[in-house]
Amino acid sequence: MAGKEIGRTGIRPDWIDYNGHLRDAYYVVILSDMTDRFMDQIGVDAAYRESTRCTLYTLEMHLNYLLEVKESDELRTDIRLVAHDSKRIHASFEMYVPRHATPVLTAECMLLHVHQGETVGSAPFPASVLAELAAWQALSDGLAPTEPGSRQIALRRR
Amino acid sequence: MAGKEIGRTGIRPDWIDYNGHLRDAYYVVILSDMTDRFMDQIGVDAAYRESTRCTLYTLEMHLNYLLEVKESDELRTDIRLVAHDSKRIHASFEMYVPRHATPVLTAECMLLHVHQGETVGSAPFPASVLAELAAWQALSDGLAPTEPGSRQIALRRR
Repeated sequence: MAGKEIGRTGIRPDWIDYNGHLRDAYYVVILSDMTDRFMDQIGVDAAYRESTRCTLYTLEMHLNYLLEVKESDELRTDIRLVAHDSKRIHASFEMYVPRHATPVLTAECMLLHVHQGETVGSAPFPASVLAELAAWQALSDGLAPTEPGSRQIALRRR
Repeated sequence: MAGKEIGRTGIRPDWIDYNGHLRDAYYVVILSDMTDRFMDQIGVDAAYRESTRCTLYTLEMHLNYLLEVKESDELRTDIRLVAHDSKRIHASFEMYVPRHATPVLTAECMLLHVHQGETVGSAPFPASVLAELAAWQALSDGLAPTEPGSRQIALRRR
C-alpha cells in the first residue's frame, strides 16, 4: 500500500537512454527533488536552512528498479517514514505510473540532520520538526511495508 | 584498495545544490555514465546492442555517501566485479577525489543482460563477454572488499 503522495513528474526526453526508457540515474534526480518537497513539508525548507544553517545530508540510498518507465509516463512519488530518531530519518519511496498497479521503483534512504558551521556536524531536530516527523511516522506505521525494501545486494539463484 | 579506474569527471556548477556540494542524484548520473564505459570495455557497446538487441538493465543499486564533493573537485571512479553469472553482473564502485585518501562514495549495483524483442527477457552473455567478465573478476578477486558495501538500511544506535 502506498505512502503519502509528494509529487508528480513528467519525463524529459533527455532522460531517456539508449535502452528506450528512463535512465537509472534520473529516477534519483526525481527522488532527490521529491526529498526537497518532503523537507519543505516537515519545515526543513529554504528559510529554515538559511536561519539555522541546518540541513539534511543523504547518508545512504538503496534503489530497486522494478518496471520500465517511458517518456510518455507521468511518475507519482509516494513517501513514508520507516523510522526516525533525534537526528536521522529513514524514509522509503515508491514511484508509480498510471498504467501499472505495482510500483516502477522502490527506494529507501537515510538522511542526517546536520549543522553547517566551521565544521559540519550532526544536530538534533528542533521540536517543531520532530512534531512533523511524528505525524508522518504515525501515518506510515499503519501501512504494510514497501516491498522490496533495502537488503544486501547479492547474486542469488533464480 | 581501489578497483580498476574507469574514468574521471569534472563537477558541473548546476550539479551543486543548496548545501554547497554535489547533489546526491548527480553521483548517480556520473555512475551511470561510468557503467556505460564499463559496458564498452566488456563488449556490450553500441554496436553490440544494435546487432544483438541485447543490453544491460540496472536491477538494484545501493549508494553510501561518505564525504562531500565540491565544484572544484575531479571525481575518479573505480569499478570492480563482486560476482557475475551467466546473465548478471554484481559490480562495485568507488569514487575518489585527490584531496581525500578514502572514497567519497561507494556503491554496488546488480545489472541484468536482457534481450529487447517483442517482450524483454533475460538472456545469457555470449562467450566473448563472459571472457571479458572473467578477466575483470580475476582482477577484482585479488582486492580487499569495498567498504562500506551494500547492507540493509536501518537506524542503528551510534
